Amino acid sequence: MTGRLAVIGLGPGDPRYLTPDAQDALDGAEALYGYKPYLDRVPTRDGQNRHASDNREERSRAAAALRHAAQGASVAIVSGGDPGVFAMAAAVFEAVEDDPQWQTLDIQVAPGVTAMQAAAARLGAPLGHDFCAISLSDNLKPWAIVERRLRAAAEGDFVIALYNPASKARPTRINQAFDLLRTVKAPVTPVAFARAVGRADETLTLMTLGEADASLVDMATLVIIGSSETRFVARDGGQPWMLTPRAYGVCR
Amino acid sequence: MTGRLAVIGLGPGDPRYLTPDAQDALDGAEALYGYKPYLDRVPTRDGQNRHASDNREERSRAAAALRHAAQGASVAIVSGGDPGVFAMAAAVFEAVEDDPQWQTLDIQVAPGVTAMQAAAARLGAPLGHDFCAISLSDNLKPWAIVERRLRAAAEGDFVIALYNPASKARPTRINQAFDLLRTVKAPVTPVAFARAVGRADETLTLMTLGEADASLVDMATLVIIGSSETRFVARDGGQPWMLTPRAYGVCR
Repeated sequence: MTGRLAVIGLGPGDPRYLTPDAQDALDGAEALYGYKPYLDRVPTRDGQNRHASDNREERSRAAAALRHAAQGASVAIVSGGDPGVFAMAAAVFEAVEDDPQWQTLDIQVAPGVTAMQAAAARLGAPLGHDFCAISLSDNLKPWAIVERRLRAAAEGDFVIALYNPASKARPTRINQAFDLLRTVKAPVTPVAFARAVGRADETLTLMTLGEADASLVDMATLVIIGSSETRFVARDGGQPWMLTPRAYGVCR
Repeated sequence: MTGRLAVIGLGPGDPRYLTPDAQDALDGAEALYGYKPYLDRVPTRDGQNRHASDNREERSRAAAALRHAAQGASVAIVSGGDPGVFAMAAAVFEAVEDDPQWQTLDIQVAPGVTAMQAAAARLGAPLGHDFCAISLSDNLKPWAIVERRLRAAAEGDFVIALYNPASKARPTRINQAFDLLRTVKAPVTPVAFARAVGRADETLTLMTLGEADASLVDMATLVIIGSSETRFVARDGGQPWMLTPRAYGVCR
């Protein structure tokens, strides 16, 4: 018998963002693997085992789930957001690359709403034009490539979504990122700090790149930095919307 | 009475990707506005009116829906994919910016799975690291900014997702894009052509940037071009997976 592995995106937290495809994959799994806070979002079910692991253990978690599936079981790994965006899908296929026996498995990825999209939906339309997503984590890559990408993204005048903007191990990285972006982007560039989007303690804070305050950032925060076209749009009775229009350079 | 406007992402096509949040917004709307092929995906319901419009009419569609909502109605605009990613959210907030009376409306954006994510899920983990999304349409922006962004994305060694890679009005733009990217990225860079993902006629074609064939591209195609780290991973009984690993420059 051939086993199956589903790599499931739970979305940003609220079950209202969980797709039927992901729900079916959860329902069909005999065993769930995941980082504990993500597993805790999934209601328990009789006969479905759970294997929680720590944040940094993506690769060993992927291997454990693949081993389990290779025994003929129907196994799922849960990720927050979209498993394809700074989450578990890459770790799974890295493990598959290293062990040919796992190349026979039936692997399905169930996409989900990632933090950048949930934040954008609350803010208005900050990703309304070309954009990029950069993780500030330097656990697995040199900081030099992060800087190279920040610079390229600024020179290309992209809207930039920053994932993993801070952690205890690198509290100053976000300051370095803002400083680098300020050498290219204007001080008036709109910036949004979207914390815990889709959860009870959600907060959205708007400012400009010139005044951007790194103390607002933790691991639950997604930061969106506008392009030269991004602006705030007034909203009666609320903080402004953030808009990156579809046209570029129209009034210049 | 204050009206409401929901800007809804239907995902890539299959209702299995429609979130409960988006489904609720559809169910709660008295009137639906949208490009006809997207409206056609939504089952009809007694008492819910539909207002179909053409592809290029985003701005007038947004204004019509806002006018309707301002009369006190509960109105929805439907988008394919995610309304925040090359879809209707930007057009809506552009219209709000231009008319202060619409700044009092209750506007909700319901995010969805965008083509890039659905394609990535089928392919493996091509977006497993930093990436950017660029629309090749030059309807509303000069081609020069597209070229500037392609060059910046290549110089930053991002994975690149290309939306709107071709149309009757610009059949050669994708060739120009490949030619530009070939001046920076290696010929062996993996490329995926993902057509009609999540629909019955879905096709996934893998090749390298050196051999990338623009004739595979139409408006239903999303193109993903790897970074220097992206590679193909063998799969028994199927075409390879596409993987951008989490680590960068580890073996160099």
